[in-house]
Amino acid sequence: MENLLDGYEGDVVPVNPSSEEVFGLECYDDLTQTEGVELAIVVVPPQIVNGVLRQAGEAGIRDVAVITAGFGESGSEGVELEREMTEIAEEYDINLVGPNCLGVISTSVGMNATFTEKSAMEGNISFMSQSGAFISAVLDWAGDHNVGFNDIVSLGNKAVLDEGSFIDYWGDDPDTDVILGYLEDIENGREFIDTAREVTKDTPIVAVKSGRTEAGASAAASHTGAIAGSERAYEAGLEQAGVIRANSVQELFDYATILGDQPMPESNDIAIVTNAGGPGVMATDAIGDSGLEMASFTDESLEQLEEAMPSEANIFNPVDVLGDASAETYADALDIVLDDPNVGSVIVVSSPQSIDFENLAEVMIEKHEEYGVPMAASLMGGETAEKPAEMLGEAGIPSYFDPARGVDSLDALREYAEIRSHEYVDATDFDVDRERAREILERTKERDTNKLGVEAMELLEAYGIPTPQGAIVSEKNAAVEAAKDIDGDVVMKIVSPDILHKSDIGGVEVGVPDEEVADTFDDLIARARNYQPDATILGVQVQEMADLDAGTETIVGINRDPQFGPLVMFGLGGIFVEVLEDATFRVAPVSEPEATEMIDEIDSAPLLRGARGREPVDEAGVVETIQRISQLVTDFPAILELDINPLVATPDGVAAVDIRATVDQEQL
Amino acid sequence: MENLLDGYEGDVVPVNPSSEEVFGLECYDDLTQTEGVELAIVVVPPQIVNGVLRQAGEAGIRDVAVITAGFGESGSEGVELEREMTEIAEEYDINLVGPNCLGVISTSVGMNATFTEKSAMEGNISFMSQSGAFISAVLDWAGDHNVGFNDIVSLGNKAVLDEGSFIDYWGDDPDTDVILGYLEDIENGREFIDTAREVTKDTPIVAVKSGRTEAGASAAASHTGAIAGSERAYEAGLEQAGVIRANSVQELFDYATILGDQPMPESNDIAIVTNAGGPGVMATDAIGDSGLEMASFTDESLEQLEEAMPSEANIFNPVDVLGDASAETYADALDIVLDDPNVGSVIVVSSPQSIDFENLAEVMIEKHEEYGVPMAASLMGGETAEKPAEMLGEAGIPSYFDPARGVDSLDALREYAEIRSHEYVDATDFDVDRERAREILERTKERDTNKLGVEAMELLEAYGIPTPQGAIVSEKNAAVEAAKDIDGDVVMKIVSPDILHKSDIGGVEVGVPDEEVADTFDDLIARARNYQPDATILGVQVQEMADLDAGTETIVGINRDPQFGPLVMFGLGGIFVEVLEDATFRVAPVSEPEATEMIDEIDSAPLLRGARGREPVDEAGVVETIQRISQLVTDFPAILELDINPLVATPDGVAAVDIRATVDQEQL
Repeated sequence: MENLLDGYEGDVVPVNPSSEEVFGLECYDDLTQTEGVELAIVVVPPQIVNGVLRQAGEAGIRDVAVITAGFGESGSEGVELEREMTEIAEEYDINLVGPNCLGVISTSVGMNATFTEKSAMEGNISFMSQSGAFISAVLDWAGDHNVGFNDIVSLGNKAVLDEGSFIDYWGDDPDTDVILGYLEDIENGREFIDTAREVTKDTPIVAVKSGRTEAGASAAASHTGAIAGSERAYEAGLEQAGVIRANSVQELFDYATILGDQPMPESNDIAIVTNAGGPGVMATDAIGDSGLEMASFTDESLEQLEEAMPSEANIFNPVDVLGDASAETYADALDIVLDDPNVGSVIVVSSPQSIDFENLAEVMIEKHEEYGVPMAASLMGGETAEKPAEMLGEAGIPSYFDPARGVDSLDALREYAEIRSHEYVDATDFDVDRERAREILERTKERDTNKLGVEAMELLEAYGIPTPQGAIVSEKNAAVEAAKDIDGDVVMKIVSPDILHKSDIGGVEVGVPDEEVADTFDDLIARARNYQPDATILGVQVQEMADLDAGTETIVGINRDPQFGPLVMFGLGGIFVEVLEDATFRVAPVSEPEATEMIDEIDSAPLLRGARGREPVDEAGVVETIQRISQLVTDFPAILELDINPLVATPDGVAAVDIRATVDQEQL
Repeated sequence: MENLLDGYEGDVVPVNPSSEEVFGLECYDDLTQTEGVELAIVVVPPQIVNGVLRQAGEAGIRDVAVITAGFGESGSEGVELEREMTEIAEEYDINLVGPNCLGVISTSVGMNATFTEKSAMEGNISFMSQSGAFISAVLDWAGDHNVGFNDIVSLGNKAVLDEGSFIDYWGDDPDTDVILGYLEDIENGREFIDTAREVTKDTPIVAVKSGRTEAGASAAASHTGAIAGSERAYEAGLEQAGVIRANSVQELFDYATILGDQPMPESNDIAIVTNAGGPGVMATDAIGDSGLEMASFTDESLEQLEEAMPSEANIFNPVDVLGDASAETYADALDIVLDDPNVGSVIVVSSPQSIDFENLAEVMIEKHEEYGVPMAASLMGGETAEKPAEMLGEAGIPSYFDPARGVDSLDALREYAEIRSHEYVDATDFDVDRERAREILERTKERDTNKLGVEAMELLEAYGIPTPQGAIVSEKNAAVEAAKDIDGDVVMKIVSPDILHKSDIGGVEVGVPDEEVADTFDDLIARARNYQPDATILGVQVQEMADLDAGTETIVGINRDPQFGPLVMFGLGGIFVEVLEDATFRVAPVSEPEATEMIDEIDSAPLLRGARGREPVDEAGVVETIQRISQLVTDFPAILELDINPLVATPDGVAAVDIRATVDQEQL
């Protein structure tokens, strides 16, 4: 109440049946007695929260923040209360924040509906956090660091509104220029991706996803009780969503301030203007670590610099205006560098030599306004640099002692410029035989296993994925017939859902000539029986020899993430995925450009592209297979896991040689 | 003069022939007129510096700092002056700092012999920098951040004293607890490694090596004109030296302050004590990124925590004392955690909830003194946290808003604890046939090429490296004889220093049976002649078939770095080094534990160690080959480059199958 009465522009109405008056305001017994209330803040014991919520619904209140704890985070009774809360909110169409949260702040109407000690200054950042304590910390820090906010939301247990709701809302909010998040999990991952892609066309999103590391994830699980998805899914999902990921609190606010204040760079090329060689090299190293590139000046700029700078100065990037440079020398250099079409952004680095930092700050602010090119500063001093840094900060130019922090900020701007200009393409809708795929999947119901093996090659065929010629046969004679239909020698494999590692038990024979097919059939069946007498043996697969020597083995797989749904994996077969862990992931559905990126991302990609004198493989075939698998698992949520291993890629095409899958029969 | 007169405990004597008096002090015409001078600061035009230096020598002055610029950094005339300077210093045995530097500061005697505006506070850090401007920046910053120094040295052009001289000196200096360096290059890399290994037994060295990235290296080259060694050499060399590498200015001083003030951790296991779940997870993520591990408390500690903490508290690591915790609750938790034998260090994380940060700081300082366990703090606030952070800083406990910075500091302490306890082993001195190796190398003098090929396999034999059975023959009949001596089929290769890529021109035949040896000999010679009519053909190598299928191809190579000398490389052959760049480096001589580490470091190591059902190879054989190659190239500086590619490793041993080398005939 005290926080609300301190500055809120609207009326505040206390509700409590046992008081007549609160802070001198008339107190109502019950929400249904009130009228015209826009937002109810609920801070009553957990057992009566849902009753109050129903009253709010009856009173026509559409927005509610439940601060009270004791719900999903605290045992089965709380889980039940929270489920009920969600139902009531749905019934009355209530937008609910919380429960178990700190409340919400909206500085544009002076509203602090939280129990924090400090409130926020006005600003253009909207911030949501799954940790209330982190909001307290940020509020304490931000006021002293000139960082203002538009809205602050403590997400709590996310019974109704979650991170997706808020990015959606802030995306349309003209007062929000940057969205910040401290997130421990993301619900409805795919929906979040789709919303974020829209939002980030205009508004950058920066997030710390906590629980990144194995240690962190286990700490987060014990903190929020959330079933966390895998870091791989978050990594892929947040990148696909266009979210800029901060790895620490320092990065979160460094990125937020520059994104809220600066124009977009027109290129990734950055110039350094410095009065000292060493710090110039430090800045250059930071650029080498980033996605930025050192700008090459035009000949015109070089001529102008040569004329304007002292003869000993270095006119190439990093521009060294020398130790005795005044703010005017910097101004002359900046006029040339900021006007150079090859320069997308500039970092000014200065050690405290002859320079007056305040004059330099004034020059930077003036040139920043004049040229509209993104800028950051590294004024390398203690107190000497404090006031100038503040002046720069007010003009939207970040200044840090360490040149690397300035460079990192400009790199976040570059990253957002790339995200903003990214054209998202829908996943291709291939013409597939969905009915046939369904039939194949439903056949598993007749068996008492949820595993599928090579007998499911037809599933791939139904989705247009090339497989080697062949058949699965249960009779010796049929095997001989099948082999006759195939040119050359054949591969024969035992087909049993109970035998996963076929080669280990001698269940695979390669290069079988026609005349040995019958005997090999008997051998394979005998070995399988011998290995596991009670195994279900579906037969033997007789397959054309995939041209393994000329081809490269790849793996396309999927598994399901609790938050993001099907996650598609790609990598090279054999040691590459299994020993070197050289694999890449995307949340399905995967579009064509995304599938192409997946190949780009693996370290072993050169092996598909003609390294060491090989002929490049049919990359388009690999890209298409990734997309078709993505479509298959998106169409059939019942497919829990699926691996094509190997998908052999040759210069002439691709072929799925083996498959393993797990299905959830209840979803069929 | 002004800086010197402001606080220096000794006498200051001005020398200038055209003044009678400087700052009221009698001025001498010439250094030879002075008596008892310990240190001369030379700030005269570059043309007369060497004359002054000679006077200093005549006057018996042993320490000189030359501030004057215009030497090696500025054209050929300057280079000549600097060469002369080095000679004079050697003649008179003068310890010379500079030229082209800012001077030196020694706070223990109140001496600021630089032209900086600010001087340094007293402290236990000694700092050297190749950038004078960076010293100015650090001085401006340090005073306002309570960071003090013992000595500060601006290295300048390092005509005489270099980074090695100063680590050697500070290593024995009881007033120096931490050595910091900003380095753009390192002269005499191997000497630096040997000195640093001694020094770091007692005194940590933290360095920013600038020019880390390709962009940075090229900026550094244009700044100092130094011929930079490769980043790979610096990375290997600094690690072998036991230097803790900081990647930014922020890291440099974060690490310096904690290393100067805290005891060594007894283990890598760290505990978090926090009043908030979210920030606890952030700290845990930072630990996941570091070399630290989350501590598991003893059962006794858990019982005590259960008793002492509120019932809702999380007593496992991270310990969550809950949002309403007071400093006393923290004190109770710290008493238990700091006393736990499984805890090596502790980070206290606190958001500004019910807590009073000053009380918390007092508790931490008290417990830190009581238990002597390394600690860091993350007091997450703005002004609220300023005074408490200062109190903690004075007690040697770093405090940052971002928990990750606190964790990183403790991680630097862990790194130093490991360096400090590292036992360096001398490189093994194998019994080799050095004379035979010399003869083989000298044979190149008779030819007009500096390249060696398979004809140099004997070089490896002389150094005890196994090679396949075989011979190099120049006659068809000799080839047939050689093949008869070998069991089974043979490999035949053309031997010519002019043909580097033998397989590409059909110069290698594998699996040749005895009866085809004669024809194959003719074919190989014909192909080589056809490819390059004027090539020198030394003959044909007839070699036993190395069991390539059962073995794994590795590469052992060396090249010479301008600063560090021979750099030994190891990786797996084929795609691994060439496509995946999975290789590791060490400065020679390489000891046995270092050679073992090299195998540990490559991503593809599991392929040598039995991954995917392979039989592990003879790792000891690989380790020994690395060491023997290291000995060979250390013994013969004339070997500029050498590659054993492949060194085939099987479960039963290793064999060097092919060799290429480049020698400098003038060094033979």
